[in-house]
Amino acid sequence: MDGAHTVGLDLGGTKILSAVVSPENKILARAKQATGAESNAKAVTSRIIETVRKSLEKLNLDARDLQGIGVAVPGTLERESGRVLETPNLGLEGYPLGPVLEEAFSVPVILANDVSAGVYGEYVAGAAQGYQHVVGFFVGTGIGGGIVLNGRLFGGPQGNAAELGHTIVQYGGALCSCGQRGCLESVASRTAIAKEVVALAGSGAAPTILARAGTDYKLVKSGILRDSVRAGEDRVTQVIERAADYLGVGMANAVNTLTPQMIILGGGLVEKLGDFYIQAAERSMRAHSMRSLRESVQVAAAGLGDDAVVIGASALVRESGRG
Amino acid sequence: MDGAHTVGLDLGGTKILSAVVSPENKILARAKQATGAESNAKAVTSRIIETVRKSLEKLNLDARDLQGIGVAVPGTLERESGRVLETPNLGLEGYPLGPVLEEAFSVPVILANDVSAGVYGEYVAGAAQGYQHVVGFFVGTGIGGGIVLNGRLFGGPQGNAAELGHTIVQYGGALCSCGQRGCLESVASRTAIAKEVVALAGSGAAPTILARAGTDYKLVKSGILRDSVRAGEDRVTQVIERAADYLGVGMANAVNTLTPQMIILGGGLVEKLGDFYIQAAERSMRAHSMRSLRESVQVAAAGLGDDAVVIGASALVRESGRG
Repeated sequence: MDGAHTVGLDLGGTKILSAVVSPENKILARAKQATGAESNAKAVTSRIIETVRKSLEKLNLDARDLQGIGVAVPGTLERESGRVLETPNLGLEGYPLGPVLEEAFSVPVILANDVSAGVYGEYVAGAAQGYQHVVGFFVGTGIGGGIVLNGRLFGGPQGNAAELGHTIVQYGGALCSCGQRGCLESVASRTAIAKEVVALAGSGAAPTILARAGTDYKLVKSGILRDSVRAGEDRVTQVIERAADYLGVGMANAVNTLTPQMIILGGGLVEKLGDFYIQAAERSMRAHSMRSLRESVQVAAAGLGDDAVVIGASALVRESGRG
Repeated sequence: MDGAHTVGLDLGGTKILSAVVSPENKILARAKQATGAESNAKAVTSRIIETVRKSLEKLNLDARDLQGIGVAVPGTLERESGRVLETPNLGLEGYPLGPVLEEAFSVPVILANDVSAGVYGEYVAGAAQGYQHVVGFFVGTGIGGGIVLNGRLFGGPQGNAAELGHTIVQYGGALCSCGQRGCLESVASRTAIAKEVVALAGSGAAPTILARAGTDYKLVKSGILRDSVRAGEDRVTQVIERAADYLGVGMANAVNTLTPQMIILGGGLVEKLGDFYIQAAERSMRAHSMRSLRESVQVAAAGLGDDAVVIGASALVRESGRG
């Protein structure tokens, strides 16, 4: 072994995924386990260590064979110190996760935001390959963003750039989980859609939603929305198109700010709703961005699914002098 | 001469300003003339050439003594070909201004957006010195933006990034000069303020506005707004505070997207209204951005006035491998 392999770790609220990745960005082995109910730094850290070890064991590798480990965290961080700043329900606020894992494995560990890692994964091995300027939107419960500029993941001074879901597109608009009003996430996420379609379910206009989620918006998953659209429940389709229209406004703002060559759309909603949703978002982006800037941008669905995050996190280890 | 000086040229709708600038970003000589009423590429080009020559003559320099010329254009461009794409009233659409000037002077010529050049000027020699990640908003008739990332002017693939005035902060809101609704410019520019205060003038609530601009919003200059505020015309002050609040939303979106360390506010409105306006915008930025991201950002007024654009344009000549 020449130390060329890297590990990418996706630390999620419900599961931890570790992947051993080759220099060609191929996943060679994986291991997975539940993040666990007790949410404290010690417990989460020991499960991370266990999961990384399991993925290495599948290839009979030892950690010191690695070039390093990239850890994708669902939240904000302080890249230089390796500390986690804000993250939901994991008890990691202020915890020096990077140094603790470096101590455990004796290899360099870098932290990245999970969606940024995913967009970077799409850049090195997925739908954004070959484009030097890329913006990604991952739409699910919330909306996460990632930015690649001049062929490098752009994280800003501490790795926390691209919180695109909390940019405001409708000042004074719908209440967001972050406490602001009119964030992109508050009008375009699956949660935003869910809150509207359960009202349709309650009034009899969305039988598929009513049958499978009742009127509880938390139960409205992307697959249910897809089935409702397929069943011809037009008012649900209209709600989704309106959300796609808003997403396009967020995409247009990214175009006017960064002039990317490629916008990647990913996440559960995009995977389940597919072309009709992506096309609606793209139309809106083209309608709401400056003429001379939108001409050179393309839009594509993410291609790597859940693998994007671990591939991106592992590739970041190889990218020295990140900016 | 060792070719170390550069020329920065600010091509405006009403005047052309050429400055010879030292490697230490000091202006050594200037020349200025009216852009002229006839708006065609030939006439504008010959006036540019004349103005550059005049500034050089003041130092007994010849163009071939220069390292190059940086031209700041009010519009969009195609950096690699040196073509102007969109620009108001100058007849330069599609015109290869860069190559034509290279031919005339036999030195490298680069084009940049004027506001981007101004923000870069503030970075190399003004209020943003020492910060590697900077976003600037220049507020006047419209709102222009500029972005410095990792110590380099960020222009995207063609030099047209940072059209921050046309990012949408209130979807479906006020009509913008670009045809969209709810652009930052449509709710936060001097024009947006002017349209509201002339209504106050018409109803007797803003005597200073009425006396100096009547009810014609195009006549409401920044100095008149300042004097109205000083005269205690509270409803005018409220209109300005509301615009500053919106500007803060645009600043917050830049914070959430790019996590700059410094936000520079410049332009006529900022110069005339000063601290009360800047502080209102900063408060709004802090109220509308993510907690862990806003803590590390500072806000300052631009420090170089009109010189920022020529200093920035000239400094860009020295920056090789621009991104």
